[in-house]
Amino acid sequence: MNDSIKTKINDFRVEDKFSQRAINLSGSVIREILKVTERPDVISFAGGLPSPKGFPKAALLEAFTKVLTDNPESALQYGPTEGYRPLREWVAQDFTKRGVKVDTEEVLIVSGSQQALDLLGKLFIDDGAKILVESPSYLGALQSFSVQNPRYETVQTDDSGMIPADITPEKAKDARFIYALPNFQNPTGITMTLERRQELVETCAKYGLPIIEDDPYGELRFEGEHLPSLLELGRKAGATVIRMGSFSKILAPGLRIGFVIAPVEVINKMVQLKQATDLHTQSISQMAVYEAIKGNFFETHLPAVRELYREQCQFMLNALSEHFPENCKWTRPTGGMFIWASMPESIDTTAILPQVVEECKVAYVPGMPFYTDLNNAPKNNLRLSFVTVEKDKIEEGISSLGRFIKNIS
Amino acid sequence: MNDSIKTKINDFRVEDKFSQRAINLSGSVIREILKVTERPDVISFAGGLPSPKGFPKAALLEAFTKVLTDNPESALQYGPTEGYRPLREWVAQDFTKRGVKVDTEEVLIVSGSQQALDLLGKLFIDDGAKILVESPSYLGALQSFSVQNPRYETVQTDDSGMIPADITPEKAKDARFIYALPNFQNPTGITMTLERRQELVETCAKYGLPIIEDDPYGELRFEGEHLPSLLELGRKAGATVIRMGSFSKILAPGLRIGFVIAPVEVINKMVQLKQATDLHTQSISQMAVYEAIKGNFFETHLPAVRELYREQCQFMLNALSEHFPENCKWTRPTGGMFIWASMPESIDTTAILPQVVEECKVAYVPGMPFYTDLNNAPKNNLRLSFVTVEKDKIEEGISSLGRFIKNIS
Repeated sequence: MNDSIKTKINDFRVEDKFSQRAINLSGSVIREILKVTERPDVISFAGGLPSPKGFPKAALLEAFTKVLTDNPESALQYGPTEGYRPLREWVAQDFTKRGVKVDTEEVLIVSGSQQALDLLGKLFIDDGAKILVESPSYLGALQSFSVQNPRYETVQTDDSGMIPADITPEKAKDARFIYALPNFQNPTGITMTLERRQELVETCAKYGLPIIEDDPYGELRFEGEHLPSLLELGRKAGATVIRMGSFSKILAPGLRIGFVIAPVEVINKMVQLKQATDLHTQSISQMAVYEAIKGNFFETHLPAVRELYREQCQFMLNALSEHFPENCKWTRPTGGMFIWASMPESIDTTAILPQVVEECKVAYVPGMPFYTDLNNAPKNNLRLSFVTVEKDKIEEGISSLGRFIKNIS
Repeated sequence: MNDSIKTKINDFRVEDKFSQRAINLSGSVIREILKVTERPDVISFAGGLPSPKGFPKAALLEAFTKVLTDNPESALQYGPTEGYRPLREWVAQDFTKRGVKVDTEEVLIVSGSQQALDLLGKLFIDDGAKILVESPSYLGALQSFSVQNPRYETVQTDDSGMIPADITPEKAKDARFIYALPNFQNPTGITMTLERRQELVETCAKYGLPIIEDDPYGELRFEGEHLPSLLELGRKAGATVIRMGSFSKILAPGLRIGFVIAPVEVINKMVQLKQATDLHTQSISQMAVYEAIKGNFFETHLPAVRELYREQCQFMLNALSEHFPENCKWTRPTGGMFIWASMPESIDTTAILPQVVEECKVAYVPGMPFYTDLNNAPKNNLRLSFVTVEKDKIEEGISSLGRFIKNIS
C-alpha cells in the first residue's frame, strides 16, 4: 500500500456514506437514560414489558417439544412469507367466531407487530407524505414511520380517546392513513368510547382515509365491557381498516409473533415487502404458537392474566392517590399496562429524570417522545407501567416519586 | 350513512394511498411460475432451501427444551435489540479464534441475514443513490435494496468472481457501497480467487468504498482450500467491510438467525434502525442456537453436511455432462448450493419455463431476475440447486431437461 492510498483511507469515514434517514436518527437521550434504569437498585416503571407471571411456560415448553418432535423438518425449514397457514386460519376463525368475518387470505403473520409498522410505513409512506396520528401516540410507531420521513398531522385526544371531529377535511386531504390505538392506548392508557369509534370510522369512510388499528392490549381488559373493534365498525361503515394484532401481551413477547388483518390487495403488497424484509417469520415459533393456542387455550389462560393486571393497576392507582400531590392527575385505565400522569406545568419530566433516578431510585418514561412536534409538546407528562413491579416496590417507588414531585412543585 | 357518503366510499381505492415504492413492486412473474413448481409431480431445482438432512434435529430439540426449562422467563421476554449477548460473544470469539479480531460490540444479531439487507438498505441508500453490485447478483438482495430505490451500477464477473478492475473511478465515485458474495455466489456458484479478493479490498480502500460481504455459504466448502474473507483482507488493507453471516445454511433456516459484523458506528445505527423494524430478534431462538452451538458443535456437525453437498453437487455435474447438449456450459462450484448453466443464446430460459414445467415436470430459476438491468440481461442462463433433490430425481430431471434443450437448440 503506497502513501497516497493511506492518505485517502485516513480521510474516509463510513458515516459519509449514510443515508439522510440514518443521519436524522437521533441518538435517543431517553434510550440512554433508560439504560440506567436497568440497574437492580432502580424501581423501574419505565418498561413496556408484560409480566412474566403471565407467560404460559409449561404450555409453550410442551408446544415447542411437540413441534420439534413431530414435525422438525417443517419447523426448521424456510416457510411461506404469508405465514404458517394453520396459524393464519386460526386468526381468521377467531375473528369470524366473534362476528367479524375474516378470510385466511386477509391474514399476514409478522415478526412481532413492530414489523407490521415497518411494512405499513413502506407500503403507504412516500418521503414527505402526510399521515395522521393521535397526540400523543405510540413511540415505536412514530420511530418506525419516521424512517420513511412522513409529514405528521396530529389528531387531538381527551379522556374519551381520539377526537374524530378534529379530523378536518384539510387534515384528511391526501393523508395516507390514520394510526389509532383504541384500547388502553400506549402511552395514555385511555380507551376510545363506542361513540368516538363510530364517529371515527364514519369520518374515515367519508374521506376515503384508511385506518390502521393497533390493538396489542385489547384482550387485557380487566374492567368494563368489551367494545367493538374499528375493524368491525369500519366494515359496516365502509371504511378500510388494517388491523394489527399481537401475541406478545397475551402469550409472550420473546416469540415475536404478530399479525395483520387487511384487505387482500394490502396483504399482497405487504407480502412482497415482507419477502424483501425478512423472507418470513420464524417457522418453529409460528407452529409452536398454533400448537399452544388451538382449542380454547385463551379462555382458560387469559382470566388469570387479566386479574393480575387489574390488581397491579388498582394498587398503583391507590399509591398515586396516597402519595402524589393534589396538583397532579392521572388516567384510570380499564385494561392494558400503562398509566399516564400529568405533573404541574412547571415540571419538565425529561429534565428531572436523571435526578429522579439518582435520588429516588425510580424510573419512568417522560411524555415528550410520544409527541411528533417536540417543540410544542407538553413537558409535564410521564408514563408509568404497572405490570412488572412487585406491589411493595410500587408502594416504595410511587411514594418516593410523589415526595420528589411535592418538593419541587 | 347518507347517500353522498356512500358515493365517496365507492370511489375510494386503498391502492390510491400506496407509496411509489409499493406501486413499483412488480407482481413477480417468476414467483407465480415458481408456485407451480411446488406441485409434488414437479422435480424442482428452483428452490433455495438447504437440505433438511443437514438439520441437527436432536441437538435443537435438546437446546429448545433446555432453554424453556432452565430459563423460560428470559426466553419468552423482550430482549435487547443488539441480540442475546452470549450469542454475540460466540460470533466475536469464533472470528477471533480464526485470526480476525472481532469485538462483541461489533456484532449485531439479525432476524435472518435477509434482515441485514433491509437494514443496510435503510442505512446507506437514499432515493437515487448509487450502489455497486455484481452482475449477476443475489435476487433477494436486489429486492431488498430496491425498496430504497437506488441507482445500480454493475461490476462484471467471470469464472474467478468479481472483476475489481471494472470498479472504475467513475463507478466508485459517490457510490454508497459495493455488495459482494465471494464464496459460491448465489446464483452462479462461483468463488472469488484470493488475488481478486486482495485486489477488491485494495481498490475499495483506495476509493473509500464500503464493502458489504455476504457469506451465507462460506462454511459449506466441500472442495479446495478455505480462502480469507473480505473482512480479514479488508482490515489489513484499510477497507471498511460489513460482513453478513447466517445460521440458515449451517444449522436451520426456519430459526431466522443471522448476524452482522461491522464497525461500531455502523452497528449503532443498525441497532436504531432494527429497533424501529422489529424491536429485536426472537429471544428463545437466539438462546437455543447459542445452547446448541457452544463448544465444538460445528466441528462435529459440518463435515457430514459438506460431504452430503459434495456428493449431490458431483452427481448433478455428472448428470449435466451426460445429458446436456455440448453447446451448453455450467459452473463447477466448490461449495454452496447452486450451479449456473448457460444455454445457447437463442434460448430464453424465462420464456420456456412454463413449457419445461408442463412437459418435463422440471423447474429451475431463470437467470434474468438476478440482473439489475432487465433490458440488457442475458436471457439464456438458469440456476439449479443441487441440494434437496434425491439422486434418482436429479438424474431424471436433468436428463429430461437436457432432452428438451437439445430439441429446441
